[in-house]
Amino acid sequence: MKKTYLLAPGPTPVPADALLAMARPAIHHREPEFQPIFQACRDGLQYLFQTERDVVILASSGTGAMEAAVTNFLRRGDRALYVNGGKFGERWGKILGAYGCQPVEIPVAWGRAVDPDAVRAALDADPSIRAVYVQASETSTAVRHPVEALAEITRQRPDVLLVVDGITAVGVFDLPMDVVGIDVLVTGSQKALMLPPGLAFAAWSEKADRFMETADLPRFYFDLATERKKQRDNQTAWTPAVSLVVGLAAVLDRIQRETLEGVFARTARLARATRAALGALGLRLFAPDAPSDASTAVWVPDGVDGVALKKALRDRFGITVAGGQDQAKGKIIRIAHLGYADTFDVITAISALEMALAGLGHPVAPGAGVAAAQQVLGGGA
Amino acid sequence: MKKTYLLAPGPTPVPADALLAMARPAIHHREPEFQPIFQACRDGLQYLFQTERDVVILASSGTGAMEAAVTNFLRRGDRALYVNGGKFGERWGKILGAYGCQPVEIPVAWGRAVDPDAVRAALDADPSIRAVYVQASETSTAVRHPVEALAEITRQRPDVLLVVDGITAVGVFDLPMDVVGIDVLVTGSQKALMLPPGLAFAAWSEKADRFMETADLPRFYFDLATERKKQRDNQTAWTPAVSLVVGLAAVLDRIQRETLEGVFARTARLARATRAALGALGLRLFAPDAPSDASTAVWVPDGVDGVALKKALRDRFGITVAGGQDQAKGKIIRIAHLGYADTFDVITAISALEMALAGLGHPVAPGAGVAAAQQVLGGGA
Repeated sequence: MKKTYLLAPGPTPVPADALLAMARPAIHHREPEFQPIFQACRDGLQYLFQTERDVVILASSGTGAMEAAVTNFLRRGDRALYVNGGKFGERWGKILGAYGCQPVEIPVAWGRAVDPDAVRAALDADPSIRAVYVQASETSTAVRHPVEALAEITRQRPDVLLVVDGITAVGVFDLPMDVVGIDVLVTGSQKALMLPPGLAFAAWSEKADRFMETADLPRFYFDLATERKKQRDNQTAWTPAVSLVVGLAAVLDRIQRETLEGVFARTARLARATRAALGALGLRLFAPDAPSDASTAVWVPDGVDGVALKKALRDRFGITVAGGQDQAKGKIIRIAHLGYADTFDVITAISALEMALAGLGHPVAPGAGVAAAQQVLGGGA
Repeated sequence: MKKTYLLAPGPTPVPADALLAMARPAIHHREPEFQPIFQACRDGLQYLFQTERDVVILASSGTGAMEAAVTNFLRRGDRALYVNGGKFGERWGKILGAYGCQPVEIPVAWGRAVDPDAVRAALDADPSIRAVYVQASETSTAVRHPVEALAEITRQRPDVLLVVDGITAVGVFDLPMDVVGIDVLVTGSQKALMLPPGLAFAAWSEKADRFMETADLPRFYFDLATERKKQRDNQTAWTPAVSLVVGLAAVLDRIQRETLEGVFARTARLARATRAALGALGLRLFAPDAPSDASTAVWVPDGVDGVALKKALRDRFGITVAGGQDQAKGKIIRIAHLGYADTFDVITAISALEMALAGLGHPVAPGAGVAAAQQVLGGGA
């Protein structure tokens, strides 16, 4: 018997009430009983996105919504900036290229946030650029990009959209779409929303509506205008992922009861406690200058094999964290704070990390990380 | 207290063991515990599709797989036939058009199957046509199209693909992909597979592989070559719909234990019993010449309001059947046989129909339909 703990930045644990809601007998999406559930989801998503605009629900993983955020707003041959400081930033470039746009890369070192001045300079240098694609939280590096500063730049330019991947940002930290001036914002179900993967979401501004009118990239399954029209009547263009939508109503209700402020404060507290604990253990953060509260990435200490560390956490202690991807593979581990996570998830992660490091021969003062975490966690929000 | 019965051709009821499997705590798709589940799904899907080829799993509803069946095989400007005898046939035309292909319609009256000679003649008349898009079972009309006869035509033409929407056909009746010579076959999770919607599946032939090499339509989320490559290692290109994949393993195990032969015989028996019952009630089938065993569509009798009939079934008896779409709206109802359905689902549907018709003033001999159904159902497979 070993209890298992899912502490990776998505998929994240699903609360039992949502699991059981999704286990209810199937209902039909064209029947009246589905309508109030769908309406509750639409309302809850507007609260989550902090927007007055429609938030459209898609049956796909987050990458589907990223694709939609390209194909519904641009024209063939359009030039678009994309911030490439990790695996997901890179993905914007690939999607843009796949659809015949001209991606213009803003390269950023892994573990760093983009410099808004670099974006401003690129836009100044090339007035033909029609959009800036960025992650609010780059999951692969645990970095938070300064979306607010980017929005200040794009808000002044009627011909440039700001398109934000909020997959590990929406419901993680404060990102009020309308107030900030984000033009397109997408997220997925398996992160702060505490659901299994399989749903994605997209909202867009009035400014983005104007881009949509002239967008000529081919799209069908991910046609956002069609979806918006249908979803305003609590219908969907294609068969929705019914059980996940039922679960969505449950988790959105949970978020609204905690309030977004409560969710953000809890998540931030867990992130702060984790960083304090890692510091107390003498470990170095991978993204010290611009950490995202979604998860914390930490360098595996010299002399320790990162793959062996991840394996020890899993096999000895039943704990799933994320490792590094691509250039960070074997060099970092990532501990999540987003979604259905609380005080003792941090304690569990840090305690296990202390024991796993000791087991791999790395000197650790037992309990030093836990003590530092408790200093943060015991003090309330 | 009223028990409810979902008897529409998708979403269909989900067996309790699959519901509970999906309600298990979340697991991570990059961790070792997911690999054997995914491998079991891939094996089970090959059994279900009756193919030696890979069957790729997508996080989307069936329409996503239909889009993939266009974008992964054709080139911009390609001409393609599509059989339009219902709502889903029409959809092929829309997808082809959305991606810049030239759809060539083979119109078919609703309730009729396509005449293979019409397809042959169209191909003879225009050698530039590169594919034939068709439904094996047109859900909106409950018609079975003669895919085997179409495959005989396309098999002889190395430059023409046969692309089949099997969304209400795969796992419903015998459609051995490799033996018949279907080039691309797609289906979804919420039909014969007895799962909630949110997964789609696609397999394609060696001949289709050659088309894929020259295909130039833009695609990213639904790039089948990328998915196949990843899925051969039990990975996925994008985050899979983990909980639905866990459920998929459960229902595929169920299907393999019953055997496809058993599933087909059971479904056919339910369809035969339903048709016999409707005949005994003096009702007319909507698709008498080529009924699909997925569901049976029946004309609402003269003098009865079809919308009121559907509503009476739902509100008085807790039974969800499907009505008609578009030109058939209010004129037919559709009773499903596919998936997790057995003897007393037919008895329930026919009994409720008798009572609902009587309640709406239509003369019915009470029990006449049930008696006719029992004649078929009592006699074993």
